[in-house]
Amino acid sequence: MSLIVQKYGGTSVADLERIRNVANRVAKTYDAGNDVVVVISAMAGVTDNLVDMAGQISDLPEKRELDVLLATGEQTTAALLAMTLNSMNYPARSLLGHQAEVRTDCDHGNARILDIGADRIQALVKRRNIVVIAGFQGCDPHGDITTLGRGGSDTSAVAVAAALGADSCEIYTDVDGIYTADPNVCPKAKKLNVISYDEMLNMASLGAKVLQIRSVGFAKKYNVPIHVRSSFNEEEGTMVVNEDAGMESLIVTSVTHEKNQARITLKKVPDQPGVAAKIFTPITQAGVIVDMIIQNTRAGGQTDLTFTVPTADYDRAMALEKKIAQEIGAEDVFGDKNIAKVSVIGVGMRNHSGVASIMFNTLAKENINISMISTSEIRISCVIEEKYTELAVRVLHTAFGLDAEE
Amino acid sequence: MSLIVQKYGGTSVADLERIRNVANRVAKTYDAGNDVVVVISAMAGVTDNLVDMAGQISDLPEKRELDVLLATGEQTTAALLAMTLNSMNYPARSLLGHQAEVRTDCDHGNARILDIGADRIQALVKRRNIVVIAGFQGCDPHGDITTLGRGGSDTSAVAVAAALGADSCEIYTDVDGIYTADPNVCPKAKKLNVISYDEMLNMASLGAKVLQIRSVGFAKKYNVPIHVRSSFNEEEGTMVVNEDAGMESLIVTSVTHEKNQARITLKKVPDQPGVAAKIFTPITQAGVIVDMIIQNTRAGGQTDLTFTVPTADYDRAMALEKKIAQEIGAEDVFGDKNIAKVSVIGVGMRNHSGVASIMFNTLAKENINISMISTSEIRISCVIEEKYTELAVRVLHTAFGLDAEE
Repeated sequence: MSLIVQKYGGTSVADLERIRNVANRVAKTYDAGNDVVVVISAMAGVTDNLVDMAGQISDLPEKRELDVLLATGEQTTAALLAMTLNSMNYPARSLLGHQAEVRTDCDHGNARILDIGADRIQALVKRRNIVVIAGFQGCDPHGDITTLGRGGSDTSAVAVAAALGADSCEIYTDVDGIYTADPNVCPKAKKLNVISYDEMLNMASLGAKVLQIRSVGFAKKYNVPIHVRSSFNEEEGTMVVNEDAGMESLIVTSVTHEKNQARITLKKVPDQPGVAAKIFTPITQAGVIVDMIIQNTRAGGQTDLTFTVPTADYDRAMALEKKIAQEIGAEDVFGDKNIAKVSVIGVGMRNHSGVASIMFNTLAKENINISMISTSEIRISCVIEEKYTELAVRVLHTAFGLDAEE
Repeated sequence: MSLIVQKYGGTSVADLERIRNVANRVAKTYDAGNDVVVVISAMAGVTDNLVDMAGQISDLPEKRELDVLLATGEQTTAALLAMTLNSMNYPARSLLGHQAEVRTDCDHGNARILDIGADRIQALVKRRNIVVIAGFQGCDPHGDITTLGRGGSDTSAVAVAAALGADSCEIYTDVDGIYTADPNVCPKAKKLNVISYDEMLNMASLGAKVLQIRSVGFAKKYNVPIHVRSSFNEEEGTMVVNEDAGMESLIVTSVTHEKNQARITLKKVPDQPGVAAKIFTPITQAGVIVDMIIQNTRAGGQTDLTFTVPTADYDRAMALEKKIAQEIGAEDVFGDKNIAKVSVIGVGMRNHSGVASIMFNTLAKENINISMISTSEIRISCVIEEKYTELAVRVLHTAFGLDAEE
C-alpha cells in the first residue's frame, strides 16, 4: 500500500466525461489499496477565458483580484471531481488552496510555495478519504488567494507529494511522456523511460510543454520522483528522477529545438565596465526575456555582443538597442529574425568529451552554419538558420544514437 | 458620512458592462464621503448552469461539493467588480465568505449565518477600502464552504449590515421596489415608499421575487432598514423597515397572488389523534411543500381536510394521498389543479375590522367563488378558480384604495 499523488491537467478534465474517466482511474488506484491525493487543474481553456475577461476590464488587472478570479477554475474542477467520486460511493473531499494550507509568499500571479500543512490532508487520508486538491492556488500570510503561475498545478502536486512524503507523484497529461525530440519534427523520436531532473531543467521548451519547469526544480530539491504519463491510456510514461537512481547511461538523452528566436548583435562595443548593464537593463525593464548572451573579445578595446530574444519582441528590442548603441558608442546594431536554437542534452556528457565535436561535425556535414554556441554542464546549444531546424534535429537525433528501432 | 452596505443581484452584474455600471454607482457613493461595503451575487444564469452541471454528475450531488462548486459564481463577480474598481483607481478588495468570516452552521445548500467577523471588514473600511464581499457563501466550523440557499446574497447583505451596524442596506435589483400588486396583472399597481418587515414576510410570492424572505426575517431581528431599489436608474425604491418607523397608515398595503397552486381534499377523514401526521409526513418527506392547510369539523367523528401544493407536485402528492386515504380509512380524495391564491396584506388590518368582509364582498360582486380561506394577523388569503386571478387582484386593488392616480 502506497500513498500516491496524482495530478491531472486541463485536457484530462476538459469536460464531465473526461472527469469521469479521471474518477475511474483514481478509484482504481484507491481500490488497489493505495491512499490517493489528487491535484487538479482547471478545465482546458477556462483559465484563458478568465484572463481574457480580466483583460477586458483593464490592460493590467489588479493582481490580487486576478488571482481570486483565476482560482475559480481549479475550484470548479475540484468540486466536480469530488462530486463524481462521491456519486460512485467513494469518500472524496475537495480542498481549496487555503484549506489544504498551501502557504505561499505574496507574489500574486507567480507565488512560491513556502509550506504545506500536511496534517489536515494526512488526517483525511488516514480515514481513507480521497483528497482532491485544487492545484495552482495557495494562500498568503494575509489569507489572500495566490496563484503559482502557468502550469502551477504541477508544482502544487510535487509540493503536496513532498509534504506528505508520498511514494509517487504521477503527472497525468495528454502526452505519453518525455520524448528524445519533438515527434512532430523527428519521426524517429522515442519516449524516454527515465530522465534526470537536471536534464528536464535543461530541456526548456521540450520539457515545458509537459511539466512546469519550476515543479522540476522543486522535485529535485525534495527528491520527489515524478511519473509523467497519459491520462488517456494505461501505458507507463517517463520517470523524472535523481540521476543517481539507476539512469540509462546515454551520453545524450534528447535533442530539443526552439524557433521564434531572433538574434541582435551590437558591433564594436567599447570594452568598459558597466557597458553590459547599459545594454540589457532597458530591454529587461521593457519585459523582453533575453535568452542566450555571447560576447567575443576583439582586439582594440572593443567587443561584439550578441544575444537572442523572442521573435515577437525583436522590433521593440531592436529599437531600444539602436538608441543604446548611440549612447555607448557602439559602431552598429544588426539582427536576424530567422534563427532557431537546437540543443543536445544529457547528464552523460559531463563525463564524455567529444559531444560538442560530434554535434558540430554533424551539422557541418549538412552544411548547416552555426552562428552562436552556448553550453551548460549538460547541454550544448547552437543557433542556426531557422529553415534548417527540422533537419538539424533529425541528424543530431541519429548521430547520438537516439533513433527508435524500425 | 455613513457606512452603506450595497447588494447587487445577478441581473445587475450579468456582464462586464453592467459590472462597470455597478462600479460607477459604488464609486459615486464612495466619492460622496461614505464608506461602502458591497455584497455581490453571481452573474445571472451562472448558478443555474452550475446546478445543471452537477445534475449531470448525479441526481443528488454531494452537498458539500455542490457548495464548493456554486461558490465560484460569487467569487467570480467579486473579483471582477473589485478589479473594475481598481482599474478606476478605487481601493477595492474582494473578500470570500471565509475571508469575511461569514460563519454558518453545517447545513450545506441552506446554511444559516451564525456570526460575521466584523473586525476584518471594519479594519479595511477604516483604511477607506471598498470591501466587495462574495454573497451567498459562508464557512462552517470545519472550514468548509457553505451556501445560504437561493437568494442568499440578500441575507448575506443584511447580516453584514447588522454586523457592521451599517446606516443603510441597499438591495439593488432589476425592479424599482415593492409594488402594491404585480404590475403585469394590475396596471394600476404603484410602488410603495415604505413597507414593514411583517408585511414583506406575508407577501411571500410578490416579495420573494424581490428579496429572499429569510433576509427579511434577519433584518427584522436586527432592525436593519433595507432599501430595495433598481440598479438601472436613480429612483428611490422601497424602504423595508420596522412598522414603528412612521409607516403610511394604509389598512391594506398590497394585493398578492400565486398561481401554480393545486388543491387536494381528503373527504371524511376519521377525526383521531395522529391522523394529520399520517397525511402530511409522507408528502413532506417526498419534498413537497404544503402551503395552506384547512380542516373543517364535520359531524360524526369525521372531518374534511384540504391543503394546497405546487401544481408541479400535484400528481405525486395525489398518488401518495390515495394510498394514505386507504390506510387511514378516509372516504375519498379529490383535487383541483386550476386554483390560485389571492391575498391582501397590511399591518393596518390588525386594528381594523371589516377587511375580510370587504374582500369577500368584492369577490362576490364579480361572481368569484371562494373555495378556501386562511388568515394571519396581517393577511387574508382566498383560494379561487385560477381563471379569475387577474380580475380578483384588480378589483381588490381598487376596493382597498391602492390604485395609482391617473
